[in-house]
Amino acid sequence: MSRVTCPVVSERIMTAEEAVRFIRPGDNVGMSGFTGAGYPKAVPSALAARARAAHDAGEDFRIGLWTGASTAPQADGVLAEAHAIAKRLPYNSDPLLRRQINAGEVDYVDAHLSHSAQQMWFGFYGPLDVAVIEVTAILPDGLLVPGSSVGNNKTWLDQADRVILEVNHWQPRELEGFHDIYGGTALPPHRRPLTLTEPMQRIGEPYLKVDPAKVVAVVETREPDAGAAFSAPDDVSRAIADHALEFLRGEVGAGRMPPELLPLQSGVGNVANAVLQGLDDSEFTSLVAYTEVLQDGMLTLLDSGTLRAASTASFGLSREGMERFHAGIDGYKGRILMRSEEISNHPEVIRRLGVIAMNGMIEADIYGNVNSTHVMGSAVMNGIGGSGDFARNAYLNFFLTPSTAKGGAISTIVPMVSHVDHTEHDVHVIVTEHGLADLRGLSPRARAEQIIAHCAHPDFRPQLRDYLERALAARPDARHTPHLLGEALSWHQRYLDTGRM
Amino acid sequence: MSRVTCPVVSERIMTAEEAVRFIRPGDNVGMSGFTGAGYPKAVPSALAARARAAHDAGEDFRIGLWTGASTAPQADGVLAEAHAIAKRLPYNSDPLLRRQINAGEVDYVDAHLSHSAQQMWFGFYGPLDVAVIEVTAILPDGLLVPGSSVGNNKTWLDQADRVILEVNHWQPRELEGFHDIYGGTALPPHRRPLTLTEPMQRIGEPYLKVDPAKVVAVVETREPDAGAAFSAPDDVSRAIADHALEFLRGEVGAGRMPPELLPLQSGVGNVANAVLQGLDDSEFTSLVAYTEVLQDGMLTLLDSGTLRAASTASFGLSREGMERFHAGIDGYKGRILMRSEEISNHPEVIRRLGVIAMNGMIEADIYGNVNSTHVMGSAVMNGIGGSGDFARNAYLNFFLTPSTAKGGAISTIVPMVSHVDHTEHDVHVIVTEHGLADLRGLSPRARAEQIIAHCAHPDFRPQLRDYLERALAARPDARHTPHLLGEALSWHQRYLDTGRM
Repeated sequence: MSRVTCPVVSERIMTAEEAVRFIRPGDNVGMSGFTGAGYPKAVPSALAARARAAHDAGEDFRIGLWTGASTAPQADGVLAEAHAIAKRLPYNSDPLLRRQINAGEVDYVDAHLSHSAQQMWFGFYGPLDVAVIEVTAILPDGLLVPGSSVGNNKTWLDQADRVILEVNHWQPRELEGFHDIYGGTALPPHRRPLTLTEPMQRIGEPYLKVDPAKVVAVVETREPDAGAAFSAPDDVSRAIADHALEFLRGEVGAGRMPPELLPLQSGVGNVANAVLQGLDDSEFTSLVAYTEVLQDGMLTLLDSGTLRAASTASFGLSREGMERFHAGIDGYKGRILMRSEEISNHPEVIRRLGVIAMNGMIEADIYGNVNSTHVMGSAVMNGIGGSGDFARNAYLNFFLTPSTAKGGAISTIVPMVSHVDHTEHDVHVIVTEHGLADLRGLSPRARAEQIIAHCAHPDFRPQLRDYLERALAARPDARHTPHLLGEALSWHQRYLDTGRM
Repeated sequence: MSRVTCPVVSERIMTAEEAVRFIRPGDNVGMSGFTGAGYPKAVPSALAARARAAHDAGEDFRIGLWTGASTAPQADGVLAEAHAIAKRLPYNSDPLLRRQINAGEVDYVDAHLSHSAQQMWFGFYGPLDVAVIEVTAILPDGLLVPGSSVGNNKTWLDQADRVILEVNHWQPRELEGFHDIYGGTALPPHRRPLTLTEPMQRIGEPYLKVDPAKVVAVVETREPDAGAAFSAPDDVSRAIADHALEFLRGEVGAGRMPPELLPLQSGVGNVANAVLQGLDDSEFTSLVAYTEVLQDGMLTLLDSGTLRAASTASFGLSREGMERFHAGIDGYKGRILMRSEEISNHPEVIRRLGVIAMNGMIEADIYGNVNSTHVMGSAVMNGIGGSGDFARNAYLNFFLTPSTAKGGAISTIVPMVSHVDHTEHDVHVIVTEHGLADLRGLSPRARAEQIIAHCAHPDFRPQLRDYLERALAARPDARHTPHLLGEALSWHQRYLDTGRM
């Protein structure tokens, strides 16, 4: 059955190769896509081919590429391979593009996801020339059924001069009704309160909208999302999860949190999945998620009933998880609600709901500053994503990581982080497999005691204590956050020089 | 005429010396006070005397001291002199207390002002034993007319076991009606949207409330606020202000801001006053402020009509400014509205209103990270205050500073800041007397070009360029945020070693 039933727009069905004629060198292009879901499947490859042909002819062909968050090899990957990206925002995790960013070839603007849409409307990024948005279907009246991620699609559709729609027949037609697209955004001074007071409350409509006059091309595809790799919890991540769960139990016991907790945000990866699995194996029940990405672990919690419902901006499922979701899609309706990232990550909503934020990190220092983005200070890994939106505004935030990396060569607890994404003012709880440091209401020195004693790997504790003691002794009039500036980053430098911290 | 007309409470009028019997060693004490305004004038001195006597007798007598923000020598100062403070939050600027914090004698928890009240309700700081709150008057029905700051007074009054009220006859009785105390705060998951959509909108009541049964003492005083030092703009601060104003003109011209701008937040000090004076001398008119402190410069703007109205959590006036305000108080009614700091600094409101945030800083690095709190990485100056609340959620934020300090020995633009309070993800515009760097939508390397070219002092530019170039060359696979980790903090270390960067 046709997925394009709007008469006006259906006249513009064409191939991806034809569609990319509407994208010019130097254009800013806003694409759909968030955590490997809902990105365009055909246009990026065709665009990459066009860029390669231009480069072969000695012409420049590069674009500014804006997305929801990370996409997949079929989008960021192919465009990077063709050296077709000049500037990229607000988040990337593609390995090839990462290499180009770190080689200095691509300008990367690593932005809070809650800032990306509004800063585009504010005019901070310049004009958006083209939007390339994957949807599930185009209805007779021109309404769009969104796909497996919402991301910044609403903003790109509203703001772009020209729109290319990819209608992906792989997206289940039953996705209609899973989305809540808020249309009440306005520029200051005309903004109104968001009325959202409960994670599953609808404040918008199930459809995206676009001015049909702007739709220059419709491309039909039938290709699955690349999906996320699902890594099963290992002993280390299970130990991290156990510490976090024990802490939550303590908070409930102390009356600081209701037994059904508060809405959960959880990042992706090994450790996040271990925490979710831990919750599933625990006494906790009737939980709810208010998050930016719904990964396999959350699907499992929805299946078991541990999680009663989840609000998200995207799916970040493995292929197996997608199959599971598609097979049971009718049962998930009403229990999963998909929102724009400006709403899923909105400071106003996160603070109001009192979200419990759980995110991974690269490293933390003894004073509680967290680095989520940079390896050894200079090379970006992925980006800050929504971690700052959630951590700053959360009721309670956790940063979780194994205590070492690279087989023990790297301590993830260091004297001073080589890059700060979450400051000492913002970090509540740090967890490794060795234990948990509760930093709430502590001074920097008191935090250092907790982090060294509970989170650092035992092999690195003596060195960290030695640093702290010598820093305290070195400047008796500067003991608020004692540092030896000549040595603070020496662990990282030593790793660069010798391969070990 | 009596300021204490509530029969129940008036029975508890006593001296400060009698009142401090209700404060025990080890208590957490929540005091009023924000930017040198509205702090208790008598109880702290009496408490300090009691602590000294205890210390002389070989006993421990120290308290946890929580305030709105900074107080004055008569509060933080006398208590620090008596070594009566064990722990302090969320902000301090008292020089003696600062020395004790930096000597490691006092634990200081430097918190976002918007976090302080809610984290107290959440139970993150432990129980509040006593509140000591200055008010203007106690009405027959027990309602309290607030004074020259609101700060965290509502929370301390609600949460403390015992309450000591200081009724200050110096506070103008006409302050009644200047305040808007929001009472709708709740814990998650019961929070509701704040309905505030315009800076001068009332969402609460003009009075603070207290359970009369908790009021253990009322102390009458008649002492002025210590007030802030007003420093008139010099050439450097005027140059900084000129760059900022020129930039605002450009934003209006580009259609990114209405001619009456958006609500202004402005920090205290020389540079802030220069910006305000610049606005007063400019074509801008009908402005409005949504800020945490109303300083002399804003009073001048209210007088001239450049500013039509201002919402604030406190006054930060000089003695001369106070006299001016008191003399014209009736004319300011309805044009100045005073709120709790949880509302003045609320992320939800700041983002909704689209505030223009202008704050000073200690230093910025070439990639746009800002240090607002630490001198040479270890010694705290004052604290983050509201700068993080405003910067993160602002429509547009400015960080302003002279390009050098200590007579040119220190560059305020450095390769890497020695402490991060505002990350590269959060900083829009940096301004010094040499120019302005517009960092919006730029990658780290592009930011470095702007900051070095426009903000750094010309004497330091060659060294900064040299650092950047060598960092780019050193690690060709790590050029996103190029750093030389062995050298990144060497400017600070050199200052510590030689007195010059």
